[in-house]
Amino acid sequence: MSATTAVRFADRLDHIETSAIRELFKLLGKPGIVSFAGGFPDVALVDVEGIRQATLAALEQEPAGAMQYGATEGYLPLREQLAAFMAGKGVRGVAAEQLVVTTGSQQALDLLGKTLISPGDKVIVEGPTFLASIQCFRLYGAQLVSAPVDADGVQVDRLEQLIREHRPKFVYLIPTYGNPSGATLSLERRKRILELAVQHQTLILEDDPYGDLYFSAPPPPSLLALSAEVPGSRDCLVHCGSLSKTLSAGLRLGWMIAPPDLLAKAVMCKQFSDANTSTFAQATAAQYLKAGRMAANLDKARAVYAARAQALCDGLQAQMGGAIDFVRPKGGLFVWARLTGAKGGDTDAKAFSLRAVERGVAFVPGAPFYCEQPDMATLRLSFATSDLEKIREGVARLAQAL
Amino acid sequence: MSATTAVRFADRLDHIETSAIRELFKLLGKPGIVSFAGGFPDVALVDVEGIRQATLAALEQEPAGAMQYGATEGYLPLREQLAAFMAGKGVRGVAAEQLVVTTGSQQALDLLGKTLISPGDKVIVEGPTFLASIQCFRLYGAQLVSAPVDADGVQVDRLEQLIREHRPKFVYLIPTYGNPSGATLSLERRKRILELAVQHQTLILEDDPYGDLYFSAPPPPSLLALSAEVPGSRDCLVHCGSLSKTLSAGLRLGWMIAPPDLLAKAVMCKQFSDANTSTFAQATAAQYLKAGRMAANLDKARAVYAARAQALCDGLQAQMGGAIDFVRPKGGLFVWARLTGAKGGDTDAKAFSLRAVERGVAFVPGAPFYCEQPDMATLRLSFATSDLEKIREGVARLAQAL
Repeated sequence: MSATTAVRFADRLDHIETSAIRELFKLLGKPGIVSFAGGFPDVALVDVEGIRQATLAALEQEPAGAMQYGATEGYLPLREQLAAFMAGKGVRGVAAEQLVVTTGSQQALDLLGKTLISPGDKVIVEGPTFLASIQCFRLYGAQLVSAPVDADGVQVDRLEQLIREHRPKFVYLIPTYGNPSGATLSLERRKRILELAVQHQTLILEDDPYGDLYFSAPPPPSLLALSAEVPGSRDCLVHCGSLSKTLSAGLRLGWMIAPPDLLAKAVMCKQFSDANTSTFAQATAAQYLKAGRMAANLDKARAVYAARAQALCDGLQAQMGGAIDFVRPKGGLFVWARLTGAKGGDTDAKAFSLRAVERGVAFVPGAPFYCEQPDMATLRLSFATSDLEKIREGVARLAQAL
Repeated sequence: MSATTAVRFADRLDHIETSAIRELFKLLGKPGIVSFAGGFPDVALVDVEGIRQATLAALEQEPAGAMQYGATEGYLPLREQLAAFMAGKGVRGVAAEQLVVTTGSQQALDLLGKTLISPGDKVIVEGPTFLASIQCFRLYGAQLVSAPVDADGVQVDRLEQLIREHRPKFVYLIPTYGNPSGATLSLERRKRILELAVQHQTLILEDDPYGDLYFSAPPPPSLLALSAEVPGSRDCLVHCGSLSKTLSAGLRLGWMIAPPDLLAKAVMCKQFSDANTSTFAQATAAQYLKAGRMAANLDKARAVYAARAQALCDGLQAQMGGAIDFVRPKGGLFVWARLTGAKGGDTDAKAFSLRAVERGVAFVPGAPFYCEQPDMATLRLSFATSDLEKIREGVARLAQAL
């Protein structure tokens, strides 16, 4: 008998692989490399002093709350702060009780997968979409269907066709500054999607980790905020938020707002997934939000990311214009681009990425972000963690590699 | 169309309900009640000052590590500290790389369920066992089979029969101070189980959240520690640990040690479950362990719990002897008892629990802890969170209620 016959894996793992991106990340250790490959916010923008004060306040004022197990739904003072935060973004009528804290918004996606997806169920996602969502839903047996995205977000006519054809369990969207698309769903399309949801009684999952990171003007209201204008749409809508890009990814805090019956089942699933999210992290975040430091910190992050986005886009346009197509994002962390093949340039982003790493610059080829029919000429560039000088140097290297 | 037709749940929820215990907990708000019903450690035993210092050290020395996303496998300094902690408990040859940090040990159970269980797979658990494990495995479609437990832990002859009969995906055990059984698996049985695992190539999952909480002498070595003596058994063994009962439940930190191929797949699943466990909590725990305060804190907790266990057991014996049967636990948080029906007393623990709540004392009836064939006369009493005076008062009320 072989030593490993004791381990027999579940069928659900058969078609899942660790992110293709991870392979690329192994190359990033190279000294001096400029990385546009990451998906992380810049940790230098975290208000460490504010978090330090918040932690001390939590341990002093509420040690029992911060040090003990907590409600699966989340720590009530944090739920209250997050409900107020959402109200500040134009979302009406979300009480603390209608909002559940999750271990990052990734866990919200996982709980929704667990709660909703039976093997073989259809789920519609954007093409391209967030890689970890694809894998997360597939692990529950979902068959993913891809709806195309343009500069104004998902194409609504095509989405409606796909909803009619596939009757999906839900539609998963990142409407604001999408990852990887960088696109912003237009106000008109947002309203149409809510109407479609009601008309076809289709659940829409709005993942919104980037909406607070706008560059000049705020984005259109979230689907959740707009749902007040479309009768019945609130019952067809799940909204996921995150503190990872705005406060600190290290706290690992997200949240979910959903129709009551769905929220109750998701909480039940969470009970058996991790019982509750760290109360230590939750109490810290609650104190931080209560202290009122979020607005100033967000202003700072917006200005920094806006400047970096501009430097990257200006550089791409100046040095690679014609050979590369992209839409300037209005917020978030990403520029989504497409190799045109003009001037004898590449149209294979994967081959280009390997040559780029040799030249000392990294990005992520776009193909893995598609659940079907990948566009091999696409790529994702994140400007989030490089300063302006590095961004300019990185673009110069990209131009050389092309 | 009804408002809720947009939400259609996954089949896996069909036979799961929120814990029966939760209903009971709603009764516990009654003023002045003495509760033996909880399953939590006493938050008053948490070394808040040590955690405060650890957090400050983490934010000062490693803000980027504590405030950013981290490796799915866990924060390396914490993995190193936990590997050293395990080595201190007689576990040889566990490098940091062979240990993965989880969001509480509940997440380890969830990841193992996700990684291993296909719908219809058999899993053997103890009868009785931890309630959340039953539900967690059932959510992945497991068919649970129950192996009986006595004062020396799971009955090994019966376990072997069940392994032969059912060929389970794995056997789930809490060998040391079980929840709810309070039982300690004997050294002889531990060795036999490791031999059975090798002989039948059956994976054994050792859940060990309570092993550090011994009252006088340390328990027998863990299955993981003993695996060095049984060739091949390490390849059939998963070990889950937790800081929730020893350091603080608020940090929400556990860990998992498993054969490399299983560990790799579990990490892949974790990537899509919550990406990583809070690095803020991990960096804090790493600093705490590095500061060397754990041993003294554990000594204190052991002494407090030992005195409380003795007060409860002495009281039960003096005031209810004959009407109630139990084995004095050697560690952990629980006394498992059985109503004998002698002296005209009850044998229905549920009815007894309702009368007890009327008298101002609460405990948990044992039936929900069985995945099949519940013993309705059993009950679980936790002494963890009441001081000695309250424990004596609680026992007096129990005696009146019976």
